Amino acid sequence: MIRGLTRAGLGIIESNERFIADAARFGFQAIDLNPVHFIKECGLDKAEHLLESKGVMIGSIDLDVDWRSSEERFREGLKALPEAAEAAISLGCFKCCTYILPSTDEAAAPFMAAATRRLRLCADILGAYGIRLGLEFVGSRHLRTQWANPFLWTMDDTLDWIETIGARNAGLLIDSYHWHTNGLAVDDLLKLKPADIVHVHINDAKAGPIENLLDDDRLYPGEGVIDLHGFLQGLRAAGYTGVVAQEVLGSHSSASMEELLARSKAGFDKVFANI
Amino acid sequence: MIRGLTRAGLGIIESNERFIADAARFGFQAIDLNPVHFIKECGLDKAEHLLESKGVMIGSIDLDVDWRSSEERFREGLKALPEAAEAAISLGCFKCCTYILPSTDEAAAPFMAAATRRLRLCADILGAYGIRLGLEFVGSRHLRTQWANPFLWTMDDTLDWIETIGARNAGLLIDSYHWHTNGLAVDDLLKLKPADIVHVHINDAKAGPIENLLDDDRLYPGEGVIDLHGFLQGLRAAGYTGVVAQEVLGSHSSASMEELLARSKAGFDKVFANI
Amino acid sequence: MIRGLTRAGLGIIESNERFIADAARFGFQAIDLNPVHFIKECGLDKAEHLLESKGVMIGSIDLDVDWRSSEERFREGLKALPEAAEAAISLGCFKCCTYILPSTDEAAAPFMAAATRRLRLCADILGAYGIRLGLEFVGSRHLRTQWANPFLWTMDDTLDWIETIGARNAGLLIDSYHWHTNGLAVDDLLKLKPADIVHVHINDAKAGPIENLLDDDRLYPGEGVIDLHGFLQGLRAAGYTGVVAQEVLGSHSSASMEELLARSKAGFDKVFANI
Amino acid sequence: MIRGLTRAGLGIIESNERFIADAARFGFQAIDLNPVHFIKECGLDKAEHLLESKGVMIGSIDLDVDWRSSEERFREGLKALPEAAEAAISLGCFKCCTYILPSTDEAAAPFMAAATRRLRLCADILGAYGIRLGLEFVGSRHLRTQWANPFLWTMDDTLDWIETIGARNAGLLIDSYHWHTNGLAVDDLLKLKPADIVHVHINDAKAGPIENLLDDDRLYPGEGVIDLHGFLQGLRAAGYTGVVAQEVLGSHSSASMEELLARSKAGFDKVFANI
Repeated sequence: MIRGLTRAGLGIIESNERFIADAARFGFQAIDLNPVHFIKECGLDKAEHLLESKGVMIGSIDLDVDWRSSEERFREGLKALPEAAEAAISLGCFKCCTYILPSTDEAAAPFMAAATRRLRLCADILGAYGIRLGLEFVGSRHLRTQWANPFLWTMDDTLDWIETIGARNAGLLIDSYHWHTNGLAVDDLLKLKPADIVHVHINDAKAGPIENLLDDDRLYPGEGVIDLHGFLQGLRAAGYTGVVAQEVLGSHSSASMEELLARSKAGFDKVFANI
Repeated sequence: MIRGLTRAGLGIIESNERFIADAARFGFQAIDLNPVHFIKECGLDKAEHLLESKGVMIGSIDLDVDWRSSEERFREGLKALPEAAEAAISLGCFKCCTYILPSTDEAAAPFMAAATRRLRLCADILGAYGIRLGLEFVGSRHLRTQWANPFLWTMDDTLDWIETIGARNAGLLIDSYHWHTNGLAVDDLLKLKPADIVHVHINDAKAGPIENLLDDDRLYPGEGVIDLHGFLQGLRAAGYTGVVAQEVLGSHSSASMEELLARSKAGFDKVFANI
Repeated sequence: MIRGLTRAGLGIIESNERFIADAARFGFQAIDLNPVHFIKECGLDKAEHLLESKGVMIGSIDLDVDWRSSEERFREGLKALPEAAEAAISLGCFKCCTYILPSTDEAAAPFMAAATRRLRLCADILGAYGIRLGLEFVGSRHLRTQWANPFLWTMDDTLDWIETIGARNAGLLIDSYHWHTNGLAVDDLLKLKPADIVHVHINDAKAGPIENLLDDDRLYPGEGVIDLHGFLQGLRAAGYTGVVAQEVLGSHSSASMEELLARSKAGFDKVFANI
Repeated sequence: MIRGLTRAGLGIIESNERFIADAARFGFQAIDLNPVHFIKECGLDKAEHLLESKGVMIGSIDLDVDWRSSEERFREGLKALPEAAEAAISLGCFKCCTYILPSTDEAAAPFMAAATRRLRLCADILGAYGIRLGLEFVGSRHLRTQWANPFLWTMDDTLDWIETIGARNAGLLIDSYHWHTNGLAVDDLLKLKPADIVHVHINDAKAGPIENLLDDDRLYPGEGVIDLHGFLQGLRAAGYTGVVAQEVLGSHSSASMEELLARSKAGFDKVFANI
């Protein structure tokens, strides 16, 4: 598995160039960044060079299409999707991810029908570029009642939904926080096939009942109570070999990126030991 | 449009043979019956002869697959679907219909995902036989809270769901009672394209607020307050030319089939006048 | 049905504005133009005004995606498709069409697999905008051996392919020249359902064996031997109510657009009489 | 990987019971048999017991649906597919396979359209049972011109076709003979993802130009020139962990099943050494 970073939990990141260089310095081999912006910033050749010279890859891009509200907004997002896909593969990235909020102000069944149709189209467009689409289920309990109607939050329901979406390139984004807050065990990971897992996020949780854990109150890997060693072993046993990207939402540390990277490295060293 | 009958509202029907003969005698050109049973009863040749000699066609078959509960029950139903489809087309019937309950004890979003996948497969199997699948939205208000979670009941949401199901042969079954209880107008029918309408049911409603109308308390066409003349004109304007089948749920009359057919004929004569 | 024009057969067209105005002057209610270019030219508001003030609609846009060669070229075309779709619907056009060459230098079966996947994706993207995709079968005999391997040219094979593509919004573009060169009759049109027909082209053919007719040697409607009156009656009976657009390929007349429009109008008046 | 057997190359097999017992005796852990017949023969309970008590599983069932000729024949086969699928999973088998003839008397492009639609439906029905569909490409050169029109025979074209079929549960059946006759190398296997491979056949080939190898003139594993050790290593590296089933077509030995099983065992011991 490949050690990766998202921007969440790293404080202020001055530039993509700095992000790449420092990630590499602290032993990370993948980062998440927006490839369209990055290429606009410095050109495709330099972008490629910056990544390759540091041995850093792009882990995943965000699905920058609003599939949760109106058809108009969905179509607005569609316009930029082929270009984003092209930019991603030009920099060697073949994953695109989005998260599923566990409740919604829309009527649940009609919203599920619309979301299924929209995500299938996104998956099919991404599929034309060889990119896989990862859907992240969200376990945080308080979000299940944040909006008027319950939607979907378990891994099994998400896998079932992926069957309905039906695209060959769709699968799960598994985040350790949502694995934990859903009360899942290592055994639940062992049931998965390699094709079920598109991408992985890692971060840690405070102690206490999982019902009380807030989505934006996460800890750095190794600093909390999640069995991250078991998590990683389970993913490996299920055949996952890709990027495991840190995503520490809600960290309001005033530390510098360098300090936070050192802290992240220490956490990865701890939880990745003997994996 | 073709005058049709389901069994609902006709009292005790002694036999399919009698049903066909009497339907024809009272000017109906289509009936609903189970083609597998009918062929088993009297053989394909005689079944064809009975229908053709009376100028009666089969309007639609029921989707006899339980897509609303478990995967096991769904698969159990799948086994008989190809044979039912074959029997239907051997007797010249190219429509299959099912209704959508407006609430469910299942969690709404995961149920919508499962139902979408199951109905798509049913539609695809039927499609191999050239059969269309009609989905009937159900307007009756009391059914929206009959089970724990609201599901889906409007014509627009059903059309949207059909887009998600995605099968070319799927469309609406429009029932005048559900058109009425949903508060729809003739203009709502004019928005439809011919391919949107697979099948039509007709029956009438008591006076009073539509919120109070019970699903199994319907009236014979022409005996209630629904603007059935407008309903039929709207369907015709939308390009519908198929069977309009009476379905009077909840009629507990002790009259004979013959008397009820006479009553049905009178109702059809009234509402079909000048269509 | 609505009288329409493509640019083919009208000589030099100075501007879209002129095209709209003169089409209207000669009794045409629809023209084909590129809505992206048109809006860039004069802005959306003026574009709308020019069309509306003359009572002219856009009949169809071309599918400007190369689905016939490499994945790279296909993806290149995808990038502009959402924008083209948005421009089309902003000007009230809900049809997009492409033609199928009857032979190919690619191996036929793998090419069919690729073409199916690509056209399905195009149809699905267009479907998000409510746009239908019309596939034009090409009857001209000499094109069946123009490239190394036979592909597909009959109406029935195209309908069957559309079933495989599977998108609810896909259907036929029927061109009178290809109807004629395929040896089809009015009865073949009567088998079609309204949803089968997305768009219609009209033009005429020289006398002689259909085997000898060249694809780019067409005549103005009413000036040749095709039973265009029967063609139009068949389409109407099949439920088609949309645009019938003239497309006279290969006309090398040096006449002015105005003269050619007068000639086109005369042809339409003749073949549309008593339809 | 699991050592498996098909019936091809084992002479006369007296009974399924005998087949299971002797397969186990010679170290095989999987056999192919028809689960519907097997259950009819001895009942589900005994069938389960016979397999479990010997530690033998069913490797794969044949797709017993004719997707290569008429719609009528295809529909005829559909009728038995759900029952076959149910029987398979009741005995723990989750694979179903079919082979692709490299040429056809049908016109190639329309046949590809029909075959795509039919196999997608088969895959979707199987998918409702959790069964994967394996498509076997056939490399034997003489079969490319056996029928009038070339169809499809390479691994890459088959993978591309599987993308078009689009079912999440479809993948390859890789047979060592077709890998060899297609001139493929171990590196070609390394490009595959675990989800690409549904099932594997193993057998060996005579020496000489691959152009001359006949499809029904195969050798037992380890008795010919194919680099079966590399083949198995490549599959393992690609993440395949399932059944590798011997299929020696055309062996006309008069030896007993027992002798042939001993010979098969010797071959497997040889090529599986150090895998």
